[in-house]
Amino acid sequence: MADTRADAGEASASFRATASADRLRACVSALGALVDECRVELAPEGLRVRAMDPATVAAVDLRLDRAAFDRYEATGTTVGLALDRLEEALATAEGSVELALRPETHTLRVASGDFEYALGLVDPSAIRSPPDAIAPDEGADLAAVTLSGDTFGRAVDAAAGLADHLTLAVDPDGERFRVEAGGDTDEFTLDRAGADLPGFEAREADSVLSVDYLRAVARELPDGPVDLRLGVEHPLYVTFDLADGDGRVRYAVAPRLRRT
Amino acid sequence: MADTRADAGEASASFRATASADRLRACVSALGALVDECRVELAPEGLRVRAMDPATVAAVDLRLDRAAFDRYEATGTTVGLALDRLEEALATAEGSVELALRPETHTLRVASGDFEYALGLVDPSAIRSPPDAIAPDEGADLAAVTLSGDTFGRAVDAAAGLADHLTLAVDPDGERFRVEAGGDTDEFTLDRAGADLPGFEAREADSVLSVDYLRAVARELPDGPVDLRLGVEHPLYVTFDLADGDGRVRYAVAPRLRRT
Amino acid sequence: MADTRADAGEASASFRATASADRLRACVSALGALVDECRVELAPEGLRVRAMDPATVAAVDLRLDRAAFDRYEATGTTVGLALDRLEEALATAEGSVELALRPETHTLRVASGDFEYALGLVDPSAIRSPPDAIAPDEGADLAAVTLSGDTFGRAVDAAAGLADHLTLAVDPDGERFRVEAGGDTDEFTLDRAGADLPGFEAREADSVLSVDYLRAVARELPDGPVDLRLGVEHPLYVTFDLADGDGRVRYAVAPRLRRT
Repeated sequence: MADTRADAGEASASFRATASADRLRACVSALGALVDECRVELAPEGLRVRAMDPATVAAVDLRLDRAAFDRYEATGTTVGLALDRLEEALATAEGSVELALRPETHTLRVASGDFEYALGLVDPSAIRSPPDAIAPDEGADLAAVTLSGDTFGRAVDAAAGLADHLTLAVDPDGERFRVEAGGDTDEFTLDRAGADLPGFEAREADSVLSVDYLRAVARELPDGPVDLRLGVEHPLYVTFDLADGDGRVRYAVAPRLRRT
Repeated sequence: MADTRADAGEASASFRATASADRLRACVSALGALVDECRVELAPEGLRVRAMDPATVAAVDLRLDRAAFDRYEATGTTVGLALDRLEEALATAEGSVELALRPETHTLRVASGDFEYALGLVDPSAIRSPPDAIAPDEGADLAAVTLSGDTFGRAVDAAAGLADHLTLAVDPDGERFRVEAGGDTDEFTLDRAGADLPGFEAREADSVLSVDYLRAVARELPDGPVDLRLGVEHPLYVTFDLADGDGRVRYAVAPRLRRT
Repeated sequence: MADTRADAGEASASFRATASADRLRACVSALGALVDECRVELAPEGLRVRAMDPATVAAVDLRLDRAAFDRYEATGTTVGLALDRLEEALATAEGSVELALRPETHTLRVASGDFEYALGLVDPSAIRSPPDAIAPDEGADLAAVTLSGDTFGRAVDAAAGLADHLTLAVDPDGERFRVEAGGDTDEFTLDRAGADLPGFEAREADSVLSVDYLRAVARELPDGPVDLRLGVEHPLYVTFDLADGDGRVRYAVAPRLRRT
């Protein structure tokens, strides 16, 4: 029954778009950090993906606006895609890539020059339901920290050498941002004054997070600024621009229970 | 007895040659794509190797003319060589390499500067007999397609992501060259007009080939033009120049049975 | 008891130093070729490490003078360090690195910018005793050969393709230096006149050495000149400068028994 509904939705749907191969590869990579398959909403104003990793520890919300495409036409539908196969179809692409939904064959056409793939769609109803909102709760009083993706990645790598979790903290009195990790005999600390960060709003924050998930996220970050929102035993939100501002990725990573 | 004959032939044989290490490495690599050991014919006009892979699916015919060498002297003999050991002997070489047959010790001397190897020869009679001719049958009415080795390699890589075989076809009416591969849910197609290829002679062609063998071949291709000859359920021939035209490599790959 | 003594020594000890991350990484790498943990003597005039590999086949003596540091203060003590964890602490470092002994927490502070590690010290008495002297015996009449680390490394790589041991020899009559290795069917030789080497003092030398140990050593050598001392069935000594002459590494590798 679900299948029928999905087909019906697709049958009247239309989607054609053209964008640079690099831009599309960046999107697939950002999503692939957490999931193998995802539902892609092909809306008139652009495409959007919300997805949650199988262990429900982390989620991603990716938006690529129509302005990020050289050409973009969508009547509005949702399709399911296997990311590893889309990645392979983009791997050999050079220059720009044409995407087109082919409802009659239940496939997505991915073409670059005269190289053309027809990728079988996945039934969206067979894919894990994404959370409704992947965004900081409006009522939560969270710290905001802007730092370079490069610094964040180096701190996560440093922690990864010592432990399987790390602590992100903001000390509102001292106006400092801290990353801490410790193993049996060694400790790592990054301790930076808020005044030395590109952006800093002090609120008390202290959360323990999984190093594995943060590494998966850190690999996708740009070298330039990324925005963190963090609280006390609260999910971490990491947000950065895509496609020169015509898109955006937000990751949410749930905190681990603190060992007491 | 075979051994005695081989030694007798070598005893009166003489071979000394000098060539660039890069040129010799390219030859060893082209042969190593299909075989571990091979018979090398050291003729007065240059060297020649014909060899067939152990599964007898593919064969290679390599010719390196005396003009490709800085110095070349051979009275005419055939020796057996283990390619992995020759590859190691060339790996540390820089600039030019001297090769010399030493019949008295049953070795090939490979020297570069004051680095010198003595490689034990393999009895040629212990190496699989190569086919007499690795070339399109004169009588066969085959299509001829010239395209860049880079394009061929990318198409093979694209197919490799989906299936263990691909189809090469020429449609004589439409004057088009096609590469097709399909898995359970996805398909790949490269479809190019003959007029958009550097060279094209239309004849009906439609053969299914092993992706593994084509990948081994594709890794050895230059980025520039390579010549394909193909027919209906017929071996594929891939030919390209070596050593700025003073040599040539031809691969033949047998078609797979078509699933019907 | 040993622990008490070590702690007592540290309690009154002080060590603070600053040096480039690259320079420190080179030291850790040179030591890590042979050992996982080592005793580091932090003397007023610089640091020194003597260590022997677990199989007692090879030893290393490394000296980094205070002039190699941007800042160096030490009252004189010996600490034990785990090299893999120090390597990780230096891996994310950029520019200069501050080292400081913290006797009260039994740790070494390793800081680069606002990235800071506290590495737990290892009890020095738990680390294998290093040999007193890692240097040619004054009374031994050894050959001295100076050649580029690059040539030495290429010769060791060449030998490694054929056998698990090689022979280093000097022929005093012919004034030649030779590296030889042989497998079942193949042989490698590097044969160079002493006059063609940057430095050469002829004495009879002929020793068989393990290729595995020489590869570990060769990976650490500079491309420029290194000094070898060698004799008849005698340990090989390989010495080269560190930190533009403000430091030095010497490796000793024991000879293998000759197959007779």
